[in-house]
Amino acid sequence: MPFVNIKITNEGVTPEKKADLIKGVTKLLCDLLGKNPQTTVVVIEEVETDNWGIGGETVTVRRKRGQ
Amino acid sequence: MPFVNIKITNEGVTPEKKADLIKGVTKLLCDLLGKNPQTTVVVIEEVETDNWGIGGETVTVRRKRGQ
Amino acid sequence: MPFVNIKITNEGVTPEKKADLIKGVTKLLCDLLGKNPQTTVVVIEEVETDNWGIGGETVTVRRKRGQ
Amino acid sequence: MPFVNIKITNEGVTPEKKADLIKGVTKLLCDLLGKNPQTTVVVIEEVETDNWGIGGETVTVRRKRGQ
Amino acid sequence: MPFVNIKITNEGVTPEKKADLIKGVTKLLCDLLGKNPQTTVVVIEEVETDNWGIGGETVTVRRKRGQ
Amino acid sequence: MPFVNIKITNEGVTPEKKADLIKGVTKLLCDLLGKNPQTTVVVIEEVETDNWGIGGETVTVRRKRGQ
Repeated sequence: MPFVNIKITNEGVTPEKKADLIKGVTKLLCDLLGKNPQTTVVVIEEVETDNWGIGGETVTVRRKRGQ
Repeated sequence: MPFVNIKITNEGVTPEKKADLIKGVTKLLCDLLGKNPQTTVVVIEEVETDNWGIGGETVTVRRKRGQ
Repeated sequence: MPFVNIKITNEGVTPEKKADLIKGVTKLLCDLLGKNPQTTVVVIEEVETDNWGIGGETVTVRRKRGQ
Repeated sequence: MPFVNIKITNEGVTPEKKADLIKGVTKLLCDLLGKNPQTTVVVIEEVETDNWGIGGETVTVRRKRGQ
Repeated sequence: MPFVNIKITNEGVTPEKKADLIKGVTKLLCDLLGKNPQTTVVVIEEVETDNWGIGGETVTVRRKRGQ
Repeated sequence: MPFVNIKITNEGVTPEKKADLIKGVTKLLCDLLGKNPQTTVVVIEEVETDNWGIGGETVTVRRKRGQ
């Protein structure tokens, strides 16, 4: 019954990688906490780099500097 | 003053249905908890089926199987 | 499969009212959008009035003024 | 280490304004709470006006009335 | 830089289990998506069973039935 | 109409500091984006250090090391 929300920057993650991530997180919650995989929900949100800030600046700006 | 966030898969909900959902949830919070509708906020987020996982797999995969 | 998160101030909502709210929101998503109630999740978060701000001030301050 | 999520309606905020908002919120958390800006994350989510409800109706409807 | 929010019911997860979960999710994001573990944030929220609904009823009610 | 959610570790922020934070964020959204302060909502969530992970470990562990 857990609900997991994963926010990442929108920088080209493939559907296959997303499927692997969903599978992995669900397995982890089952193995560690005994949670039922059938009712475990994982939602991935991809956020534009203009809309994600860290260290007081956008990821867009950081990427331009090569970070 | 309540804040309601509704996450659903992005599978063609019309603006009319969204308006009905917003109206219905706001009314429910007013009727049941006495919350002021004027300051009740409802935000609907539509998530791609590749980004929504349940039972360890994506909704995209489930839809292909007819689930 | 929808996920609904309801944030309200922590001001004495009874378990019965919460159960009614969960039931009502789940029914609404089923009636309006055809969502399966068995996989509809509703999570209620109760927030202290010191931690909820509207109009630039806390709800604690507003309640003291009788709002 | 704080995490800030700002939800606004999607009505044409420029990248420059978003950068200013990220900078301002990060500074505020540093000045007021002594939080390290280097690990402060700010994520802005822009929500379509059809998907944002207040007062039981969508922002789309309110904008048409000039509100 | 990812931000992960895990909501589970408040039913006695130990600090050790939480530490394992944080470690596991962070490793998964590093291994699968190449995300920097140093800036990966994981926040666990434990929700009372009265406040968590699935299938239109609270987890409190389901637990009483042995589910 | 913006909705702001601020998650911080639960380490003794006073009600006065919270009120200042709410006031400051609301003012910022008004000054930068022209948002109406009367309908701007700010919710602060304080998370136990056992439940907050960064760099693959809990804040509890980091605090013990003096970080």
